[in-house]
Amino acid sequence: MSTTTRVGSNACFGGSWQRYKHDSECTKTPMAFSVFVPPAATPEAPAPCIFYLSGLTCTDENFVQKAGAARAAAERGVALVAPDTSPRGAGVDGEDDAYDFGSGAGFYVDATAAPWRDNYNMYSYVTEELVAAVRDAAPAVDVGRRSITGHSMGGAGALTIAMKAPETWTSVSAFSPICNPTRVPWGKKAFEGYLGSVEAGAAHDASELVRKGGPFAFGDILISQGADDDFLVGDVDQLQPEAFRAACDSVGQGLELRYEAGYDHSYFFIATFVDQHVNFHADRLLAR
Amino acid sequence: MSTTTRVGSNACFGGSWQRYKHDSECTKTPMAFSVFVPPAATPEAPAPCIFYLSGLTCTDENFVQKAGAARAAAERGVALVAPDTSPRGAGVDGEDDAYDFGSGAGFYVDATAAPWRDNYNMYSYVTEELVAAVRDAAPAVDVGRRSITGHSMGGAGALTIAMKAPETWTSVSAFSPICNPTRVPWGKKAFEGYLGSVEAGAAHDASELVRKGGPFAFGDILISQGADDDFLVGDVDQLQPEAFRAACDSVGQGLELRYEAGYDHSYFFIATFVDQHVNFHADRLLAR
Repeated sequence: MSTTTRVGSNACFGGSWQRYKHDSECTKTPMAFSVFVPPAATPEAPAPCIFYLSGLTCTDENFVQKAGAARAAAERGVALVAPDTSPRGAGVDGEDDAYDFGSGAGFYVDATAAPWRDNYNMYSYVTEELVAAVRDAAPAVDVGRRSITGHSMGGAGALTIAMKAPETWTSVSAFSPICNPTRVPWGKKAFEGYLGSVEAGAAHDASELVRKGGPFAFGDILISQGADDDFLVGDVDQLQPEAFRAACDSVGQGLELRYEAGYDHSYFFIATFVDQHVNFHADRLLAR
Repeated sequence: MSTTTRVGSNACFGGSWQRYKHDSECTKTPMAFSVFVPPAATPEAPAPCIFYLSGLTCTDENFVQKAGAARAAAERGVALVAPDTSPRGAGVDGEDDAYDFGSGAGFYVDATAAPWRDNYNMYSYVTEELVAAVRDAAPAVDVGRRSITGHSMGGAGALTIAMKAPETWTSVSAFSPICNPTRVPWGKKAFEGYLGSVEAGAAHDASELVRKGGPFAFGDILISQGADDDFLVGDVDQLQPEAFRAACDSVGQGLELRYEAGYDHSYFFIATFVDQHVNFHADRLLAR
């Protein structure tokens, strides 16, 4: 594995947000990620961690700067890990043409279709290379105890990553996730591009995965969803939380789906409810 | 006064962040500002407010997105008002040449020197036009009860604006303010450009103003300062909090100057201590 270099550190709520860069073997590009180390964590007494996966167009920095998650994480003594959403500058023809495919839109899958398969391997990046890089670079973080959450595309990533390896993740939650991507425009475009067909996307669709494998070892899933989210109540429901609820119900997978009246798809929504998610994960991580 | 138009609204912590645009007479440009309206506020029972002035390079959005101030403001029932830091696109020759002068760097003074004096009038903008625009556009905010804070250049603005009209502002605080700008490079450059001389800047220098007019009706000033702020402990002390402390002491002006070990000049510092400032102002505003 290549060297991981710390490129920034800012004190925050008694701990620190640290930013790292490394050359990724999964994406064959330089990648950046951020880690919040809570105040009491040390290599001898490392903190369990919550991975946060961002949505379309985001980098690791949106969550770091806008969610205000460090306050609750510091209070509970849990770390936060935030990766980027795709390779950057991979040089794939057309990768910067759309906000919902290519750069900023890796969808947390390993691409199988050319020309994307050489670089767009965000599933392996997050689940293997990032875990190893955090272990290497931030020894005050215990990646052996980890939970996962995310927003929108990153919510889809959090749900599916947890379902693909349910013993690995202590708990899973999401903010306004894309719950049934094989049925909606964002997901269809991504799966056709990265995997060659929408059908191949079934293996990366939370509603499909829960029907197939649920209920899961990580227990109840928490989802927060703005009731006035344009991507829910607009012309197209890109998110499909009710399809996910039906899928969970069909197999007895526990789900707490919280609709929040008046809230949209933005980081103002995430900031308002991030404490609930930090506490949800901290309760489970710290009980281990 | 021109029409003020709401261009955005996002639910947040039970209230909402609202963004407005209007054509400013002070700057002769379109200006944007943001207002957080806390949950319980109505035109019949409007909330008192805290003005927040940003630092060099910022717009109104940095504070809105990065400080996490809405949580405490919602809890206490106070509004937040965040203006931009300068005119934008005024067309003054050279206005985009430097990060510390011109666009993004209005220093909250009314310029007297050509070519800046036609547009760079951020003192009048904040103290008159913005107050009127908020009154007009956001009737759930009571601009008659207002306090002021800010960061760096905006901290200098908050201190001096309060000192120039001490009966107008219920309380004043600052994050890492430029306390004695006539003595440091940032201030000297601004005053030479906007006012024609450093000497003319004395009327806009908090350390000079407190010696001349303190102690003030608004009572104790709260300042939070990162002890590891590069602009404090780097090659040049641009901030000069000890000069300000000496000036306050010389006239009996109350000052609580809190050095925070390990913290820098960033919004991670502001986010960590913003609750203290919201509570400082809320205690005083709600007692009125």
